[in-house]
Amino acid sequence: MIIPQEMIVQLENIVGQSFLFLDMATRTHYGHDETEDYNFPPSVVVKPADAAQVSEIIKLANTYKVPVVPIGARTGLSGGALSINGGIGLSIERLNSITIDEKNLQAILGPAVITQEFQEAALNKGLFYPPDPSSRGSCTIGGNVAENAGGARAVKYGVTKDYVLNLEVVLPTGEIIWTGANTLKNSTGYNLTQLMVGSEGTLGIITKIVMKLLPKNTHNVLMLVPFFKAEQACEAVAAIFRAGIVPSALEFMERDAIDWGLRFLDSVSLTVKDEVQAHLLIEVDGNYPDVLFAEAEKIMEVVEHFVIDEVLYADTEDQKNALWKLRRVVGEAVKSNSIYKEEDTVVPRYELPTLLKGVKTIGDKYGFKSVCYGHAGDGNLHVNIIKGTMSDEMWENEVPKGIREIFELTVSLKGTLSGEHGIGYVQKNYMDIAFSTQHLQLMKSIKTIFDPNNILNPGKIFPDSI
Amino acid sequence: MIIPQEMIVQLENIVGQSFLFLDMATRTHYGHDETEDYNFPPSVVVKPADAAQVSEIIKLANTYKVPVVPIGARTGLSGGALSINGGIGLSIERLNSITIDEKNLQAILGPAVITQEFQEAALNKGLFYPPDPSSRGSCTIGGNVAENAGGARAVKYGVTKDYVLNLEVVLPTGEIIWTGANTLKNSTGYNLTQLMVGSEGTLGIITKIVMKLLPKNTHNVLMLVPFFKAEQACEAVAAIFRAGIVPSALEFMERDAIDWGLRFLDSVSLTVKDEVQAHLLIEVDGNYPDVLFAEAEKIMEVVEHFVIDEVLYADTEDQKNALWKLRRVVGEAVKSNSIYKEEDTVVPRYELPTLLKGVKTIGDKYGFKSVCYGHAGDGNLHVNIIKGTMSDEMWENEVPKGIREIFELTVSLKGTLSGEHGIGYVQKNYMDIAFSTQHLQLMKSIKTIFDPNNILNPGKIFPDSI
Repeated sequence: MIIPQEMIVQLENIVGQSFLFLDMATRTHYGHDETEDYNFPPSVVVKPADAAQVSEIIKLANTYKVPVVPIGARTGLSGGALSINGGIGLSIERLNSITIDEKNLQAILGPAVITQEFQEAALNKGLFYPPDPSSRGSCTIGGNVAENAGGARAVKYGVTKDYVLNLEVVLPTGEIIWTGANTLKNSTGYNLTQLMVGSEGTLGIITKIVMKLLPKNTHNVLMLVPFFKAEQACEAVAAIFRAGIVPSALEFMERDAIDWGLRFLDSVSLTVKDEVQAHLLIEVDGNYPDVLFAEAEKIMEVVEHFVIDEVLYADTEDQKNALWKLRRVVGEAVKSNSIYKEEDTVVPRYELPTLLKGVKTIGDKYGFKSVCYGHAGDGNLHVNIIKGTMSDEMWENEVPKGIREIFELTVSLKGTLSGEHGIGYVQKNYMDIAFSTQHLQLMKSIKTIFDPNNILNPGKIFPDSI
Repeated sequence: MIIPQEMIVQLENIVGQSFLFLDMATRTHYGHDETEDYNFPPSVVVKPADAAQVSEIIKLANTYKVPVVPIGARTGLSGGALSINGGIGLSIERLNSITIDEKNLQAILGPAVITQEFQEAALNKGLFYPPDPSSRGSCTIGGNVAENAGGARAVKYGVTKDYVLNLEVVLPTGEIIWTGANTLKNSTGYNLTQLMVGSEGTLGIITKIVMKLLPKNTHNVLMLVPFFKAEQACEAVAAIFRAGIVPSALEFMERDAIDWGLRFLDSVSLTVKDEVQAHLLIEVDGNYPDVLFAEAEKIMEVVEHFVIDEVLYADTEDQKNALWKLRRVVGEAVKSNSIYKEEDTVVPRYELPTLLKGVKTIGDKYGFKSVCYGHAGDGNLHVNIIKGTMSDEMWENEVPKGIREIFELTVSLKGTLSGEHGIGYVQKNYMDIAFSTQHLQLMKSIKTIFDPNNILNPGKIFPDSI
């Protein structure tokens, strides 16, 4: 896409010369996220200072009918931040303020705040922001809101949407609004806050976020349980809940996931018996160590009904960090090993063994191997489909059929396509599996109301046929 | 509104003769809720058996451009279920099935299920549905979803929206959709589930609800703390959270609220010193009595920093039930005492003392008395404005000015108009205080997409000027 020179001049007038970039290196840098190996450079990159500048940019884009793609830390896994049609790449990186409101247990954040930095700022005041995506060290809170990110603690504490109280948003018309109020309860008009969460930068550009915080927990217990049968690991998940326990994390890793993670991380060592097929990483948290030990014991009673190897308790902070590092790195480790496609399947948690078995059967049918891991406590299984030595032709033509069958399976189990990564660019043509044409058209009409010229992050979420 | 006879015949063909009512007694019965003393009888009452019949009714209403108002248990406090333009009163009372899915910790409910009956059905399976509106014995879960009901436990467990996973909805076009999936995580397209929650029956008719459940708690501790200064009771609220405690309920009652409640309830007795201005009713819950006693002790340490009378611990289930009965009955007690208007103000919890003080000052200015009580833990203060001996002229002309000032105050404190009752009919002309005209027009455009003929619950939420 060629941007008219007069528009570039006007953009420069808005953000200042130092915050507008036309060079190929910068454009390429902002042209990719963590989705496979795509790169779609924006035609121009701008870095506005505040909501007022964002609003001016958006108005200009409407005048010239040029796409605007909001860009955060580019850690996304569905291509939401890719400038697939070129246009303006709007990096929100300068909007990075953090205010912790201790009196109300809230925080007011710029969208560019790194999730882990926010968590730590809250902890320093004795407060707790639970959502914990694996990329928390590099992803931004704005991206978390745009994709409704989840992570390991969602099983007990919910996902990003459960913490967002209010959003300052620049609408695609340039108007700046607060979507709601800074309150825990709100029954005042349509919930535009929740409509905005997970809308993947297609309905507005988030410029401020008011988050709910909790008092921090002081203790946790972390255990790693090796299962000789992968499906039994999945079965144990629902059994733990039925025993009345709500763990703060309940993570599943197939054998390959842990092996690849261990190979990727020099710093972590762990001996795993050859016959072990999968692990559950289980955490309970709270303020009373005795209670946590009692809960860990109850969990032991549950998992001992299955065929397991010796359970590893993480005794020190270092051991806990090592196990979490191993879990968090699996995605990256798989990626470093092979070309792959990552699917973000989610089902009601009791259906997890059926899903896992189905994924393997479908893989056999279409000739692909998959490495599965994820947030088993909430039925969210990441399925990494490995190219390995597969021919390009098979990869392009057969694998998508298999992915379609996997999604058809999730939907038949009352699940859906994406638990926490979003639909973005790479999953959009599977949306017909989850929704009727009329349903998709209804969503698309909402998009059109917000964005009549379709300038904001076009070509995302909706299938090409809608 | 006169409904054409041929349309009545067609309605009868859909629901059957026994489920269509034209007599004045039935229409009057379905013409009111608990909002002041309004009665707007629908022109005809129908009681469909299932979503398919609801869909047929909606299609017919579109053909004849006749309003349809979904009606639940008529316990609403903002007039959402009033047939203000006549038309079809669509009672959902036959859609009352309950299925508890123990394996997934979920429930599938018809909208007519009484909230308390659902809570009890869950408890019987060892599961817990926390949202607990004061009217739980008579309100329906469908109404709770439509208004995003909250109640006393929201402070720890969230409101209705935090439990709704998926909704079967008949859209105003007659199409039947599931809004999402039965999963704890979902990042698949726009969140129509959350858009539907709190939309007060204006975007669709909910015919099935999938709710998340938690494992049940086995224990709780309940204490009643009498304060000699009402504002100190409000101040104590934020202090309890800052001490790291998240109570399962933290309720505020002004002196009048408790006195009127006691007079209304013969079965409960309680001696309150003359000088006591307000009470906090505080509950902590969990599975470990020792932990709860420790938390109650921490709460004691906090409240002892204020000027309080002796704290009452409820030692038995009967005492607990009596205190909760007293708290739940306050609204009804005030209503039985005088003509009144109930406002459902909500602010960030630390602002509660400022709100309470402001309400009293505004009352003095406009010459009205108010009885205040509510869910202080989440900043949700019910302000009951009492007519008493005030002239009708003052009541009609001066009091609304005072209400407007109260709402202006809540918004200036980053709060909003309604925490849990909804906007419905009686608050709609205050919406300009919380939202700009463009913001309201954006919401109204969403309404128009869903409901191009404006047949579904027209005249609610939006100010007459929009």
